[in-house]
Amino acid sequence: MNCFHGGDIYRNDVKYDFSVNTNPLGMPKKSAEVARGAIELSSRYPDPFCDVLCSAIAENDGVKEESIIAGNGTTQLIHLICLCLGVKKALAPAPCFYEYERAVSIAGGKMHYHMLSEKNDFKPDEAFIDRVDGGTDIVFICSPNNPTGRLYDRDYIERLAKKCLENNAYLCIDECFLPFCEADDSLTFKRDIYSYTNIIVLRAFTKIYSMAGLRLGYMLSSDGALLGKIRNTMPLWSVSLPAQLAGTEALKDKKYMSETLKLIRHERKYLSIELKKLAYKVYESSANFILFKADEGLYDYMLKKGILIRDCSDFTGLGKGYFRIAVKKHSENEIFIDNFRKYKEE
Amino acid sequence: MNCFHGGDIYRNDVKYDFSVNTNPLGMPKKSAEVARGAIELSSRYPDPFCDVLCSAIAENDGVKEESIIAGNGTTQLIHLICLCLGVKKALAPAPCFYEYERAVSIAGGKMHYHMLSEKNDFKPDEAFIDRVDGGTDIVFICSPNNPTGRLYDRDYIERLAKKCLENNAYLCIDECFLPFCEADDSLTFKRDIYSYTNIIVLRAFTKIYSMAGLRLGYMLSSDGALLGKIRNTMPLWSVSLPAQLAGTEALKDKKYMSETLKLIRHERKYLSIELKKLAYKVYESSANFILFKADEGLYDYMLKKGILIRDCSDFTGLGKGYFRIAVKKHSENEIFIDNFRKYKEE
Repeated sequence: MNCFHGGDIYRNDVKYDFSVNTNPLGMPKKSAEVARGAIELSSRYPDPFCDVLCSAIAENDGVKEESIIAGNGTTQLIHLICLCLGVKKALAPAPCFYEYERAVSIAGGKMHYHMLSEKNDFKPDEAFIDRVDGGTDIVFICSPNNPTGRLYDRDYIERLAKKCLENNAYLCIDECFLPFCEADDSLTFKRDIYSYTNIIVLRAFTKIYSMAGLRLGYMLSSDGALLGKIRNTMPLWSVSLPAQLAGTEALKDKKYMSETLKLIRHERKYLSIELKKLAYKVYESSANFILFKADEGLYDYMLKKGILIRDCSDFTGLGKGYFRIAVKKHSENEIFIDNFRKYKEE
Repeated sequence: MNCFHGGDIYRNDVKYDFSVNTNPLGMPKKSAEVARGAIELSSRYPDPFCDVLCSAIAENDGVKEESIIAGNGTTQLIHLICLCLGVKKALAPAPCFYEYERAVSIAGGKMHYHMLSEKNDFKPDEAFIDRVDGGTDIVFICSPNNPTGRLYDRDYIERLAKKCLENNAYLCIDECFLPFCEADDSLTFKRDIYSYTNIIVLRAFTKIYSMAGLRLGYMLSSDGALLGKIRNTMPLWSVSLPAQLAGTEALKDKKYMSETLKLIRHERKYLSIELKKLAYKVYESSANFILFKADEGLYDYMLKKGILIRDCSDFTGLGKGYFRIAVKKHSENEIFIDNFRKYKEE
């Protein structure tokens, strides 16, 4: 297992980290400012209830404050969800983010994977919905999917949610990367938690606001019993003071969001076009990262140049020669493409 | 339950927070500096293994790096310990820090309390050691004890550890407040984890380095199976980047430590002498806080003056009229004493 779900920048000499899917703009300026200010205040314990942050999220997302639980990254919440539901059988498509399986297994359950077809560019299929049965406790999907970058249709997720509801299963929709998509507002299930009590939505500040080092994510649900259990199970003060303040501030910065969308759209297009000239295959992405197939040697070659890319061979359903890169700023993307070109020429 | 183990500064108008036992000097200057710098680096994920931090702790504490797990505050580690050991029966003295009971109960176990005698100033007694039996999974003690401020003798803890060992029970020694005591080095069980494989030592940066808002603590154990299980169970990236960097830096500041010890010694003495003139009873403390008995109305009176003290009525084994205050800087301590005097005069 690659413990990092990205790359090990701490034990490698990395100048350009394409393995981690955070916003290339870096943290919003004012968020960084208040986070720095929060260091001075850190003799205080953080508010265990994250009241100010949750109120800002509620307003931003159009949900009730009581439907929100903030956590030390969505990772903590994924673990708590599995633990509190006592998940025995979980279902997810493959390939998919690994942490769901880890959390299910820690809770004493087993992750069942439905293999998406490579021939079909890993498009979610009807057979996945058919796999939900009376034994299923929870289904995990990530939209857009990590590492494929594929979005789920609204209609598809609704059918999946209904099938889950019929089978008393929860549907956990990880929308960590959805804010990078222009269709976020029409595709999100944030406000559908009130019509589907079995839907849990995960959102992260980590990626869209580039706060990976600070750790901040939240979950949305209208299931009072589940929310209560998670609140009672969470270690107190899970979310640090700098994270709470930076997160609250970030939601105000609408200009940052429009700049992000513009940058990602342009640069994803640039990378896709260039990658198609160099890679064996490039998968169509709606996210801030791109999956492609290339020669196995690419990883080591890039690392020697100080460029870390995500080797996806450890994803269930993928294998050697699959790589994922983050969409970064143009100058960095050029450096990656230039080096890929050199690799092909050597 | 008082969810804060202190006071709710987020829903009260508090100028002087005597309810929270953090170092009155505030974070070491260089720690605050690197933590602020870490905000700029926070598009990176933190090192999930906290390698640099653990190496600094190993050197500082004279333990092996492999014996250390850093966490998002010791609270996270207390929860993980109970979960990973599958604690059914735990034992602790009362009064004592509440979070042990919460963690035991979340793990599905039950906390059994041994009531310390008020007449004996809550001194740990032999009967507590006698309560350890074959059914006991883990014993928790906090030295100096929170909220009494009482230290455990080295010899007492050794006898307790042996009794635990005979009964296949773990002994978790929470040394969160021990760095505030001059006897830290002779009383700590940090290095005894190698002779007693059943001993788990908890240490926090939160209190001694005033990093409550940043969240940082660690555990020490030589039990490879337990350590492995906790590492496999912990959500990834639990410790934020600012916390890792600030913690590593803090260990270098020896002057800060000597100033802390001097301040706490002086001010604890000042507060004890003054409190004895005003309170019904003052308990002898070796820590950076003092437990005392006074008129129930003191809490509300102080709060109206913007001074938050810890109402200890929710501690098992205590009751109404027990209060705990932190030892703070002289000017603040004076303000507290002045107001206590006014309360008595009114």
